[in-house]
Amino acid sequence: MKRRAPTKPTQTGVLSLRIDLPQGRIGPGKIRLLEAIDSEGSISAAGRALGMSYRRAWELVDAANRLVGEAVVLTSPGGKHGGGARLTDAGRALIADFRLIERDAQHAVQSQLAALVRRTGPRSA
Amino acid sequence: MKRRAPTKPTQTGVLSLRIDLPQGRIGPGKIRLLEAIDSEGSISAAGRALGMSYRRAWELVDAANRLVGEAVVLTSPGGKHGGGARLTDAGRALIADFRLIERDAQHAVQSQLAALVRRTGPRSA
Repeated sequence: MKRRAPTKPTQTGVLSLRIDLPQGRIGPGKIRLLEAIDSEGSISAAGRALGMSYRRAWELVDAANRLVGEAVVLTSPGGKHGGGARLTDAGRALIADFRLIERDAQHAVQSQLAALVRRTGPRSA
Repeated sequence: MKRRAPTKPTQTGVLSLRIDLPQGRIGPGKIRLLEAIDSEGSISAAGRALGMSYRRAWELVDAANRLVGEAVVLTSPGGKHGGGARLTDAGRALIADFRLIERDAQHAVQSQLAALVRRTGPRSA
């Protein structure tokens, strides 16, 4: 839906979360990469889409695998940087869990964020 | 209180939040610095306590000032890097707001975090 509110369309506070688990940290970087792998169909294309080196993308996938305790991405051979990749069920579950936690946390503190926005910012605004 | 739980004392997920406001982002880095300024009484000592350069500490204070729209720290003269510093009411309010939002968000998703911890991690654990 195209809708441009005439006044203060972005005057809300938006949370971004990192979750520290006993075995590591998961945050927007790894989650966005997994989402990009899902849409792009390869780790290299996902990395490119996010302006990330292939090496960095692999490191994040590897970290996500270790965090979850099983593979979150399955790759198929295809030469150097050329193979396809897709998410496993565990990878999809991780994304879904993270996005739900993010949404619920945002919702829980929405009124506090709105109050913080009202109290801060340029006094001339 | 010294207490070492025998089993899984840290087996919970802990959130850390960044809040994107229209005028900038506030996260644990700036908040911890302001808390350190409050306890240390100077920007340089606070930076040192956090392993941060004086320049970096000043940049974060400056960013926090702009974010809030007024000074969050008052400094008194004292020579190069030597002046004292204390929080303003606005600075204290920012810390209190952030920590409360963090606590409420954590509480809101506590059971989801616990479920995520149970589903992830080394399979041998």
